[in-house]
Amino acid sequence: MKNSPPTNDTFLKACRGEPVAFTPVWLMRQAGRYMPEYRAIREHKPILDMMKNPELAAEVTLQPVNAFDVDAAIIFADILTLLEAMGLDLEFIPGRGPVFHNPIRSQSDVNALKSSNASRDLAFTLEAIRISRDKLQNRIPLIGFSGAPFTLACYAVAGGGSKDFDDVRAWMFSNPTLWAELMDRLTDGVIDYLQAQIDAGAQAFQLFDSWAGCLSVRDYARFAAPWTRKFFAETQGRVPSIHFSANGGHLLEQIADMPVDVIGLDWRVDPANVMQRIGTDRVYQGNLDPARLLASDSATLEGAQEVLDAFAPAKGHIFNLGHGVVKTTPPERVNKLINEVHRLSARM
Amino acid sequence: MKNSPPTNDTFLKACRGEPVAFTPVWLMRQAGRYMPEYRAIREHKPILDMMKNPELAAEVTLQPVNAFDVDAAIIFADILTLLEAMGLDLEFIPGRGPVFHNPIRSQSDVNALKSSNASRDLAFTLEAIRISRDKLQNRIPLIGFSGAPFTLACYAVAGGGSKDFDDVRAWMFSNPTLWAELMDRLTDGVIDYLQAQIDAGAQAFQLFDSWAGCLSVRDYARFAAPWTRKFFAETQGRVPSIHFSANGGHLLEQIADMPVDVIGLDWRVDPANVMQRIGTDRVYQGNLDPARLLASDSATLEGAQEVLDAFAPAKGHIFNLGHGVVKTTPPERVNKLINEVHRLSARM
Repeated sequence: MKNSPPTNDTFLKACRGEPVAFTPVWLMRQAGRYMPEYRAIREHKPILDMMKNPELAAEVTLQPVNAFDVDAAIIFADILTLLEAMGLDLEFIPGRGPVFHNPIRSQSDVNALKSSNASRDLAFTLEAIRISRDKLQNRIPLIGFSGAPFTLACYAVAGGGSKDFDDVRAWMFSNPTLWAELMDRLTDGVIDYLQAQIDAGAQAFQLFDSWAGCLSVRDYARFAAPWTRKFFAETQGRVPSIHFSANGGHLLEQIADMPVDVIGLDWRVDPANVMQRIGTDRVYQGNLDPARLLASDSATLEGAQEVLDAFAPAKGHIFNLGHGVVKTTPPERVNKLINEVHRLSARM
Repeated sequence: MKNSPPTNDTFLKACRGEPVAFTPVWLMRQAGRYMPEYRAIREHKPILDMMKNPELAAEVTLQPVNAFDVDAAIIFADILTLLEAMGLDLEFIPGRGPVFHNPIRSQSDVNALKSSNASRDLAFTLEAIRISRDKLQNRIPLIGFSGAPFTLACYAVAGGGSKDFDDVRAWMFSNPTLWAELMDRLTDGVIDYLQAQIDAGAQAFQLFDSWAGCLSVRDYARFAAPWTRKFFAETQGRVPSIHFSANGGHLLEQIADMPVDVIGLDWRVDPANVMQRIGTDRVYQGNLDPARLLASDSATLEGAQEVLDAFAPAKGHIFNLGHGVVKTTPPERVNKLINEVHRLSARM
């Protein structure tokens, strides 16, 4: 069963640019704090504990699948556990977010990084994938994911979050050789992690380069793109791949030039403009402004129709938000959105 | 003297697209916490007190002029004092930033906004402009500025700062008519404020639409551009105008279509790509990554050369960073950057 197509394989078909009867939908952060079912668990559990408990992670993964008619599930995990597996001491501090107590600042810090072995160090996520696949009973596909090397490097060097990682870019400019070494190590880690997720049953994956958008076009080409490209080249061909970067509209030509199946777009960019730049003969994912779901049903559905219309000329389209679901989003509106995308796109 | 050209009128000439002997430079947030002279004052004074004391605001305005060979000064002020003048209760809370205790949430909140009269309510900034002009003795021009209506609306509705103003966009989607009314009121305020700054002696001005980048291309056209356009149309022709928006690369076609003299670019966008989209027959300002100044002299100067080369085909170029000077920037590196831009561009 593991390798047979899911009952609803619309998402996978769309990833491959094949014809579909309706536009498939999933939402970034579809399992999250906007859902009361999620909050009921999260209230009693630190987030890392939730992720490291495979049964619980699988339960959370299935919550939006049970609540809504999504066309794909995405494993409940965090991009930062890979850095923890590589030896960085991770703590989620309430009200402050993730903190690494031993950030990367020197050659010896890079040397001290462990080569992560996902089957050993991230077994909890791999097991959560197996349980989720089991619970999904092949009704819809399961998406795996990882942070991209650049975004992981941002957190590793900054020692946590930042407004726009000025200090990380400064460190990168000052230490280009060490930066390349760090990126090599992280890329190996990401490749191993995603391969292991695919082995465990992930039927597609998304690479989140959440912070690549803080680089200029030229610096992205030099300090990030070579490693993202290497990652896609090495993982190519097994399952469909998706790239997503928030605020990365200026980088899309370079991303489109990589061996990636689906190009994720944030809500800012105009689909028509993107297709003018990199063509209609691609599969795109996106890109409704998540703020519309905070506003009203009509703002949500009007926006959904605009997104569907805009991507109509593309070879393939997977409907998603242009960023994660905001935690104050009403779940009933998510439900309406998903049903409406199915209804509207089936008519098109 | 007030209306005669400054001794060094390179900046104004470049704004008008006239030939210049070298590329003029000024830096966003050139008067700021990275300067020890600034910190010496700031230590003992809340920031609003500094701005509301015209002598002190003028002193701070002149600090970078005295320290470096900048080709323009910019008045030391804050975009939020206009909202205060319109009746919003502003407080800068240490560690948290600006807070408005009575944010705009309803029709009655919009009705309650005062029509600001800058000569009455923002006299401190106008007086700071007069004193700064006096102290500058017409050596270099003085730039005035204001927040753009959209960015002011963001702060007014959010009641302070935000990561990406999701709630403001939601409010805007839910209340399009009220939004338009709020934008009308703010636009009138901005026009009055900038006209008063010009009357007081500002020889150019920059409109900061710091948050416009959080809008999609389509929503910018509907919810922000009409008011920015109106502003530029009404202030056109008196002194050169500059538009700057961080993270607004996707909006540049619309901005270029307005009656604005200089198009400011943040560090992310590629000048060559921008000129391909909106032409070389324009004057651009920007766009060195401010993080380079945190890194090293060589990263700074290498970046400066790249920026100068990239803008060489443009009708005009004003060198600036692609965002404000970061507070940990070494002042001696700012000095080297400015001198080097002058030296390199004079040879070009």
